[in-house]
Amino acid sequence: MDGDGRDESMEDPGSWSQKRQAYLPVAIAFLALVLFALALIIATKGSRPSGCPSCNCAGEFDPDIGLLTQGGSEEESQNELGFGLAIFIMTLSFCIVASFLISEHSFFNLPDCLSYVFIGIMIGLILRLSGISATAGYALPNQEQFFLFIIPPIIFEAGYSLSKADFFRQSGSILVFAVVGTIITALFWGLGMYLLGTLAVSYKFRLWEALTFGALVSAVDPVATLAIFNALKVNRTLHYLVFGESVVNDAVAIVLYHTFAQMIGSSRPHWYVPIFSFVYIFAGSVVIGVLTSALAALILKHLSLSKQPTLELAFYMLMAYVPYFMCEGFGMSGIMGILTGGVLLAHYAHPNLSTVTQISSNYCFKSIAYLTETFVFVYLGTALTTFNHSWDSATVAFAIVLTLASRAANIFPLSRVVNKYRGNAKIDAKNQFIMWFSGLRGAIAFALSLNFPGGNEVTRRVVISTTLAIVLFTVIVLGGGTLPILQLLRVEGAATASKNQKHVSHLEGRDMDTFAAGQEHPTPDEGRKGWLERMDEIYFKPWLTNPADAANQRSTAATFQRLANLSGEGGEALTPHHIGSMFDGLEEPM
Amino acid sequence: MDGDGRDESMEDPGSWSQKRQAYLPVAIAFLALVLFALALIIATKGSRPSGCPSCNCAGEFDPDIGLLTQGGSEEESQNELGFGLAIFIMTLSFCIVASFLISEHSFFNLPDCLSYVFIGIMIGLILRLSGISATAGYALPNQEQFFLFIIPPIIFEAGYSLSKADFFRQSGSILVFAVVGTIITALFWGLGMYLLGTLAVSYKFRLWEALTFGALVSAVDPVATLAIFNALKVNRTLHYLVFGESVVNDAVAIVLYHTFAQMIGSSRPHWYVPIFSFVYIFAGSVVIGVLTSALAALILKHLSLSKQPTLELAFYMLMAYVPYFMCEGFGMSGIMGILTGGVLLAHYAHPNLSTVTQISSNYCFKSIAYLTETFVFVYLGTALTTFNHSWDSATVAFAIVLTLASRAANIFPLSRVVNKYRGNAKIDAKNQFIMWFSGLRGAIAFALSLNFPGGNEVTRRVVISTTLAIVLFTVIVLGGGTLPILQLLRVEGAATASKNQKHVSHLEGRDMDTFAAGQEHPTPDEGRKGWLERMDEIYFKPWLTNPADAANQRSTAATFQRLANLSGEGGEALTPHHIGSMFDGLEEPM
Repeated sequence: MDGDGRDESMEDPGSWSQKRQAYLPVAIAFLALVLFALALIIATKGSRPSGCPSCNCAGEFDPDIGLLTQGGSEEESQNELGFGLAIFIMTLSFCIVASFLISEHSFFNLPDCLSYVFIGIMIGLILRLSGISATAGYALPNQEQFFLFIIPPIIFEAGYSLSKADFFRQSGSILVFAVVGTIITALFWGLGMYLLGTLAVSYKFRLWEALTFGALVSAVDPVATLAIFNALKVNRTLHYLVFGESVVNDAVAIVLYHTFAQMIGSSRPHWYVPIFSFVYIFAGSVVIGVLTSALAALILKHLSLSKQPTLELAFYMLMAYVPYFMCEGFGMSGIMGILTGGVLLAHYAHPNLSTVTQISSNYCFKSIAYLTETFVFVYLGTALTTFNHSWDSATVAFAIVLTLASRAANIFPLSRVVNKYRGNAKIDAKNQFIMWFSGLRGAIAFALSLNFPGGNEVTRRVVISTTLAIVLFTVIVLGGGTLPILQLLRVEGAATASKNQKHVSHLEGRDMDTFAAGQEHPTPDEGRKGWLERMDEIYFKPWLTNPADAANQRSTAATFQRLANLSGEGGEALTPHHIGSMFDGLEEPM
Repeated sequence: MDGDGRDESMEDPGSWSQKRQAYLPVAIAFLALVLFALALIIATKGSRPSGCPSCNCAGEFDPDIGLLTQGGSEEESQNELGFGLAIFIMTLSFCIVASFLISEHSFFNLPDCLSYVFIGIMIGLILRLSGISATAGYALPNQEQFFLFIIPPIIFEAGYSLSKADFFRQSGSILVFAVVGTIITALFWGLGMYLLGTLAVSYKFRLWEALTFGALVSAVDPVATLAIFNALKVNRTLHYLVFGESVVNDAVAIVLYHTFAQMIGSSRPHWYVPIFSFVYIFAGSVVIGVLTSALAALILKHLSLSKQPTLELAFYMLMAYVPYFMCEGFGMSGIMGILTGGVLLAHYAHPNLSTVTQISSNYCFKSIAYLTETFVFVYLGTALTTFNHSWDSATVAFAIVLTLASRAANIFPLSRVVNKYRGNAKIDAKNQFIMWFSGLRGAIAFALSLNFPGGNEVTRRVVISTTLAIVLFTVIVLGGGTLPILQLLRVEGAATASKNQKHVSHLEGRDMDTFAAGQEHPTPDEGRKGWLERMDEIYFKPWLTNPADAANQRSTAATFQRLANLSGEGGEALTPHHIGSMFDGLEEPM
């Protein structure tokens, strides 16, 4: 597994003196970053002598407050927003540099996302202590912005860079865990919390409130889960099971959340209303995802947009986003829609792109997903200190216990069911334990809690604080504990030395490829093709995708050959001005 | 000039039958797009039987209304926003496909931005007629969002893809026109309007109001100007003069606007306050742009982030944006800051990137700029129909006359001044005429007008409507008229057959390169280097940028060679899953 050539750079001990040389300027750059941030903070504080209009009430988390409604003139609010965004951008840059340094020099062995959460907590503390949390709050997204701009890139990228073969090989089990499992978890948690409330040992939720709460906390976060699973190297089968489950599970949890939330208001709901609503949202979102990506593939196939990579990339970015807004517009699940879209775009539309756009779009999507993902963890950290919490310790304690118990009620019984159909690739007890343990909650649960329905302000605050407690508990305790647990259990394939690749891979699971040789459980349906796969080869692929014919191949090869010659000629490095002239129009029309 | 190989594809008459074959699926795709949009609109209308809360008042343009404040539940507002965004995304996709088809088949000979405006007007009419302009309005950016998210990518890209040599060769003249010229234009326009108001022939503005108005309408739009200049091929000297002027001019106009706006409130301003304020904003923004890009260059030089292109691109994108927010936070001009940042990042930081990130970032920036730019024109079109205008015909008429006159008062006298120092590269009368004619107003002027200060609602409405009238007049009449004028004047180098390259080039001006051979005015300071250029070579470049040494060159060449081999091998096309494994870790550490 270490025979891979890409590991060389890290293992090379000779580069240490080189690294030391690099430390001084890095340290200086770091200092400059921190000084910049401090200057920002002091300047902001100075520019608002009277203190914030609603001091320390942390109104920034109130979803009813838009960006512009809070006091002050327009001019001032733009300054505030500018500052807030500048602080967050500086923080994110800091996170990138920090995570690079950590991965490069292996200072300590925590998953990235944990360091981001701690950086967030620190930033939040600084903001709180300097009394300007409201300023930063201007830049914090409300629930709506969270769902429209922060979550979609992460989910899209997850679907887009999925290894289709692995995912679909596990799809049966994934769907069982994600659909049936999530329903079990949500009902278990919700009913448990309702019961505890009725027994007056925790905060008293009404039935539908408790179920809605159960639905939102049953959203296992793919971001956190993936971040931690990629930092550790686990068995390929387990990886795709957990990854697939966490991605599909979100869509299911959100659909459940909306279904239950609708019930809170209505007086006497029919039993079939939630079921109908669930099916409508789920199926509708998938259909929209399928239609938009088929449309995108068709347009890219028949128009030779590849002659103008700028237009092509712009169009591709738009089409990636379309299903999300479309689904939200129809009251369906944008997450489910954009996930479907991502999987299908990669399969059908991606081959129709020019090579330049294939590469550019790939890194563009990856980097944006990385940024939003990092932001999410920082945000969770800051939320702990800047939000005016309403802790109910008994509720928090029971909620954490219920979270662990409800996931157990999902994984262990369903594994038994699933194992009946998995031939010789059974999920053994160790892997079941890891699946149970790796149910991290994250941004989606927290974002959902920000706008808890029902109109009861006290309930909403309790829900937000309790959710944040669950999220931080699972990320820090379970996330931080996964590595020791894996070492304890000696799961095959678990390796801790792979830290230098995790940044890239936790967005795509690429490094799992290196396991192909040592894979121990060949899955049963390897070799034979499902009906869907055959339909795909006979109908869908030829209809939607350009054939990878010899002329295309030659043209692509020629492009890169020309680039190789150009860069080898010993001229200046590529300037932005030259890249355009080298690529645009270079690709021959189809 | 047509000897360039890239023009072949368009001129080839044999591909016509091939094109015809492509028409059917394209037409189908188009129909599907339009049907989708209609379905959206009808569905939205159906979901809101009671009509919008503030019907037809088009509150969406009111900057005091945030995204979330207007009636309805949170849930509903998210649906509305989702719909609005979906409509705009579909519209943008439509624009891309339309502009591609127009450029490919030369249906008619209008600059792109004009078609976008007309598409916008149509969309606005449909929204207005179906009575759901408020729904779409949810998705329209307010002034703040305009300046934070729509304008920066355009300006950044303009600076980033600038051909430095050409720009700096003209920099003296550019600065004269952009700084002195803009001040002349703003004062001429403002004082003229004040005078007309005093004479009671137009709307009566107070002095500082008139000057603020003058400052905002003197912002020549680089987007519109460039879009039109690139669609036509003009003389290289003229191109960079007009382009450079329009970019720097914005920053100056915005600074003037803020300077004058501060005066509206204050009772008895000292004469030196606006001057001091102007210098502070201008110099401060440049300093911030310089510092952040130097920091970015240093970090990229000394950390080998190039090993992880995802992190590298994410970091680079953040650093591109930092100066904007920083400047806004300090109450300076974000536009000026991000323009400086763009120019310097391209010069110092870009060579430090890995080749993959150089290409990806380039297309990423270009495509985002293209999208925001297209959005701007669509938005201007919709604004005509959806906003509840307050037309004052006399004011509009005088405003248009003043716009033409004030630009004449800038260009003609200053050309005479500048010509004294331009050796044998004088700006002749024809070119002066074109410069006068090409002063298109656009998004920046309109965005500034949305939040006209002073608190007088009637004045604000008059300002918004008048500005929109000026913008549409200049874009449609002057923009549409530039081509005939050029033909009439037979400006050397003017060619109309170059439509197939304009999409790419109107973001970078690349195709001007083909003029190098036929350039008629070799500029006087060609050959000798300015002190700044020498400082750059001796101090800045070695300090901030990695030397383009032989090892780097070899590594880059090897990357592309490997890509050429891979794509030539006749395997499957690249999948997103594979691109990662091909690039990441492929670049050797420095």
